[in-house]
Amino acid sequence: MKALYFDGQIRLVTDYPRPRKSKGEALVRVLKAGVCNTDLELMKGYMDFRGVPGHEFVGVVEEAEDAALVGRRVVGEINCPCGTCQMCLAGKGNHCPERSVLGITGRDGAFAEYLMLPEQNLHVVPDEVSDDEAVFVEPLAAAFRILEQVPVQEDDTAVVLGDGKLGLLVAQVMATKATKVLLVGRHEEKLRIAQQLGIDTQIEGQAPDIKSRFVVDCTGSLDGLRKAIQMAGPEGTVVVKSTVAEQSTLPMAQVVVNEVTLVGSRCGPFEPALEALRRKSVLVQPLITGRCSLDGGVEALKEAAQRHSLKIVIDVAPQ
Amino acid sequence: MKALYFDGQIRLVTDYPRPRKSKGEALVRVLKAGVCNTDLELMKGYMDFRGVPGHEFVGVVEEAEDAALVGRRVVGEINCPCGTCQMCLAGKGNHCPERSVLGITGRDGAFAEYLMLPEQNLHVVPDEVSDDEAVFVEPLAAAFRILEQVPVQEDDTAVVLGDGKLGLLVAQVMATKATKVLLVGRHEEKLRIAQQLGIDTQIEGQAPDIKSRFVVDCTGSLDGLRKAIQMAGPEGTVVVKSTVAEQSTLPMAQVVVNEVTLVGSRCGPFEPALEALRRKSVLVQPLITGRCSLDGGVEALKEAAQRHSLKIVIDVAPQ
Repeated sequence: MKALYFDGQIRLVTDYPRPRKSKGEALVRVLKAGVCNTDLELMKGYMDFRGVPGHEFVGVVEEAEDAALVGRRVVGEINCPCGTCQMCLAGKGNHCPERSVLGITGRDGAFAEYLMLPEQNLHVVPDEVSDDEAVFVEPLAAAFRILEQVPVQEDDTAVVLGDGKLGLLVAQVMATKATKVLLVGRHEEKLRIAQQLGIDTQIEGQAPDIKSRFVVDCTGSLDGLRKAIQMAGPEGTVVVKSTVAEQSTLPMAQVVVNEVTLVGSRCGPFEPALEALRRKSVLVQPLITGRCSLDGGVEALKEAAQRHSLKIVIDVAPQ
Repeated sequence: MKALYFDGQIRLVTDYPRPRKSKGEALVRVLKAGVCNTDLELMKGYMDFRGVPGHEFVGVVEEAEDAALVGRRVVGEINCPCGTCQMCLAGKGNHCPERSVLGITGRDGAFAEYLMLPEQNLHVVPDEVSDDEAVFVEPLAAAFRILEQVPVQEDDTAVVLGDGKLGLLVAQVMATKATKVLLVGRHEEKLRIAQQLGIDTQIEGQAPDIKSRFVVDCTGSLDGLRKAIQMAGPEGTVVVKSTVAEQSTLPMAQVVVNEVTLVGSRCGPFEPALEALRRKSVLVQPLITGRCSLDGGVEALKEAAQRHSLKIVIDVAPQ
């Protein structure tokens, strides 16, 4: 099959072996995949990844033990836990130390014609959700993870820092709970998209410092995280949504004196993400700034790294 | 009056002006004061402090508007908020940006024969609590702050990292809630004190890595904080109790991937601290490793910086 393959360099391979279905797993024919910043980090050496990247996708189940799944359009949770360790038994499979993660560690990903995932990871996509929209379920679930972790109330002001694709999703998710959401970013054209989605925006540095009880850092930069800690202020909470670097220099004295809480946040629940897309309470179509076929995937990854880019969708199996 | 005065160097001054009572404030004759690591940090330049340090004390009220306070033995909360700003009106006076803090910022402290504090900051010490014990109310309150911030349950395991005076207090406070508390430190003689207080202990590095849902970092070192993040593991919480440096290099990728929560924690509630001392559910006497008069205060501060030291008590007005 065709796949994008990374072994220190990313390239298109046309004769990559199709994954063979193993016990409890389903073979999925990929329809579309999305490029995430984590993919770009992998290309820079993050996680020492080797293999097929890609973890945002929508596809059709070709083989599965559960006959009801075969032929269904699905999205998939990316963490594949061992199921038997202490962490798994405690219901925290996402943190299983033995887990493989689709297109990130120990498992080939979605930038290929086929992928494999445990059947229990799959979620059937409702008819009202298009293929393009379904590609966003995984990052959107990561945004919904925040609401599981921090007690955002209707009358809270939430600030989202960073106007990239994650920031645009997170701002919309925060707006499903809090009445006042402010997206702070550096790119007028990206903030304009947020405005069209009904989110208040601000160019970073163009207004006095805001203090907010909740700040979500989606900048993917160390500067952003530092700024988020400042904005959170006394007893504020900073949700740290992007891994910026293994080691980050942070103003910890400020964290202690102001009693700031930092919450690391990663993968999230698929059901609220699917439901939000079905009900159109989160809109993702405006976030697509490029699309390509698998043949053009190497170029697409370069394009995704450009400052002006938001989501690049790879049409793996054009319909 | 006699006072220890710091202006880049610490020295004993015998003719320091006695503070003059201002509106809403009480004049307190200091009986005893305790040396805290923050005092040592101030001597190194932290907060650009100039004046009389010291913020742990017990004293007797000499002048006050509230007649019922005069002659009473008191301890005092150290944050003096403005009372009118947004933070104060929201009930978070401890975070008032205009606050002065006894012996730390904008207000002379307890290493002197007299000090001033707002009357509302004072708490009368019950007869069952000795002067020595009362000196520990402020740091003990800071330890009780943790229980206000994180939901420690009876069946939780709590690890306290760092066997200094703060660690020994925090371990005892955690033990009032959680059945299993482990104090991890580097000093056998200090861990022995904890053992005598009924706390399980472990020499750092002498056993396999522990994972715990709650880790309190009381090491005052950057290494300690990094270690605490490791020990907290997936979805764990690290309470950051000591300011180690303005800027700290931390493994933030680990914080995100493991969804660790870091909680900055500072000053705490005096009432549970007084009550714990009254009921002897927290014992502090074994933590006193040195005492001196105000005349010997400069030497005492040097002694407090020694590795083997725990609490040094300054007998300001020997009775």
